[in-house]
Amino acid sequence: MVPYSAPVPVRLDPTGTSLIILDQTALPDRVEERTLSTVEEIEEAIRSLRVRGAPLIGITAALGVAALTRGAVVTGTGGSGPLTRRVADWCRRLATARPTGANLSWAMARLERMVSDLGEVPPIELARQLEAEARAIHDEDRAMCRRIGEHALELLPSEGPLEILTHCNAGALATGGIGTALAPIYLAHDAGRVVHVFSDETRPLLQGSRLTAWELRQAGVDVTVLTDSTAGALMASSRVPHAVLVGADRVAANGDVANKVGTYGLAVLAAHHGVPFYVLAPTTTVDLDTPCGEDIPIELRDPAEVTNGFGRWTAPPDTDVWSPAFDITPADLVGAIVTERGIHLPPFADALREAVP
Amino acid sequence: MVPYSAPVPVRLDPTGTSLIILDQTALPDRVEERTLSTVEEIEEAIRSLRVRGAPLIGITAALGVAALTRGAVVTGTGGSGPLTRRVADWCRRLATARPTGANLSWAMARLERMVSDLGEVPPIELARQLEAEARAIHDEDRAMCRRIGEHALELLPSEGPLEILTHCNAGALATGGIGTALAPIYLAHDAGRVVHVFSDETRPLLQGSRLTAWELRQAGVDVTVLTDSTAGALMASSRVPHAVLVGADRVAANGDVANKVGTYGLAVLAAHHGVPFYVLAPTTTVDLDTPCGEDIPIELRDPAEVTNGFGRWTAPPDTDVWSPAFDITPADLVGAIVTERGIHLPPFADALREAVP
Repeated sequence: MVPYSAPVPVRLDPTGTSLIILDQTALPDRVEERTLSTVEEIEEAIRSLRVRGAPLIGITAALGVAALTRGAVVTGTGGSGPLTRRVADWCRRLATARPTGANLSWAMARLERMVSDLGEVPPIELARQLEAEARAIHDEDRAMCRRIGEHALELLPSEGPLEILTHCNAGALATGGIGTALAPIYLAHDAGRVVHVFSDETRPLLQGSRLTAWELRQAGVDVTVLTDSTAGALMASSRVPHAVLVGADRVAANGDVANKVGTYGLAVLAAHHGVPFYVLAPTTTVDLDTPCGEDIPIELRDPAEVTNGFGRWTAPPDTDVWSPAFDITPADLVGAIVTERGIHLPPFADALREAVP
Repeated sequence: MVPYSAPVPVRLDPTGTSLIILDQTALPDRVEERTLSTVEEIEEAIRSLRVRGAPLIGITAALGVAALTRGAVVTGTGGSGPLTRRVADWCRRLATARPTGANLSWAMARLERMVSDLGEVPPIELARQLEAEARAIHDEDRAMCRRIGEHALELLPSEGPLEILTHCNAGALATGGIGTALAPIYLAHDAGRVVHVFSDETRPLLQGSRLTAWELRQAGVDVTVLTDSTAGALMASSRVPHAVLVGADRVAANGDVANKVGTYGLAVLAAHHGVPFYVLAPTTTVDLDTPCGEDIPIELRDPAEVTNGFGRWTAPPDTDVWSPAFDITPADLVGAIVTERGIHLPPFADALREAVP
């Protein structure tokens, strides 16, 4: 399921009434699992990035709603109101735990629609169906990761060592499978090719150095970490990468991409140096209801992540901070968007409309 | 001397036999001074960035050699060899404490030349002359900062609020006066204008958030800190700055600029957005003996600054890291180089040859 032998980032416990997550905020220091049994705990885990990555938080919320439902059935701790109304409440609450990623609201809408289509059923049947649907979302994501990787490999040199630059973590820790941006890397590595990844550390929360470096090393893939602002020096050096591969939190209908802050700067640098810049994401990340990047809500993070993110003050305590979690890369800087449906080339509007179910 | 009431970054102690530095590695947590009395201590302070900033390390080394000389005279702890030979040894040792900045080797060469011109003199006279020369280097730098600021203001909007983006620290903590990149900001602020500075935090050592934010706040200038990779989102936002102002560690004869890693990426972004990109530095930073950026040696920093810079592991412990301290911004991305001699416009080769004494 994941390309290395380590805890999977999210799963149901054996009774199906709790979520067990790998707490990504503890990595790489400690490999720690947490059990989540209430909607508050699940919401907190998503908000505080214990689980993160647009596809994975969709999966987490879906499995979470399934666990909460079975938990309510088993323990009879249902509070008031019929169970279907409580399921809808959980879905709506979790759908807004983080605002930018498309997959979270997509997954919650899918469960809500399923419940609505189901009509009146016994509570245990509702729980069963929700678990099946959540597992389907997880399984589908796993399959999408692999297909994204296969398609993306067609864009990269087919022989010789592969040198890739990536930002943040769009790997196994961000998805239900082998990742999006990292999927072709894992496939090439499995096929015996020499692969080397440059990973931006990705301030403020360092998903690149904490998570991407960790999971690639677990899988035996060579990785070099660099500070985010070293990417320019890299592209100007003799080790210019074959491509910049990134994931996405939301792709608008016109192909504008919201992804971890810093992605836009990388895209500008890549264009300046003629380095291909590709966005790898499942179609569940594409939001045709969002016309363009300007319409994507951008989450602002807590200033303390910048000024005191590591247990000491790295700026005067009450310094003003601007910390958007994401930025928008306009479609004209994106060489290709790769989904499980294939390689989509500019102009993206028609291609995405066709690709997204 | 500095634009706020705080310890100056470097000075001689009252006896003239030691240096007293503000330990910049402790900021913004603690305002701590250190006394340096041996060449080892001075070298360590420069290497470990307790004092940093290309102009300031030149001043520090010069005052340091003066202090060591007077110390040897006063205590009679001279070791073997005539004092002039020991002065030359100190100069050569400190000249290579860090490789990229031009001012350090420039200041050491200036002292060596002075000693050589002086010929045979009594040790106490040698100590007096060295102190006078070191203080002259400091005083000249202070005056250059002010003139750089005055010239740079001519490039900026003359009325209304001023919005500036800067990287690293090219302020009072990097020079003998009011800084280079921050000089026009202090002058505009003193003149009563509304000034707002966006400061990149500047990984790995966070000179932007630790030092620039600290000194600007001490002086009452509004500052907002952002992670380095947020600069792209800023330029794409409605708060696009009037200019990007940066210092330099070395300017080559053709106008290529070595400055804190990340400067190059900012220059590319600025060009993409039509935001003026200016380099502010004294002529002591211009090295006409270095033809172009490729010829500038780039210091590689300790990987631990990236993987364990905050007292905890932010990457798996033995992760490979590439951490150049500086990058090269090619002259064609630089809108103007401002020295104490004026505003130099492209093509820079002739302008710099004329400006540098």
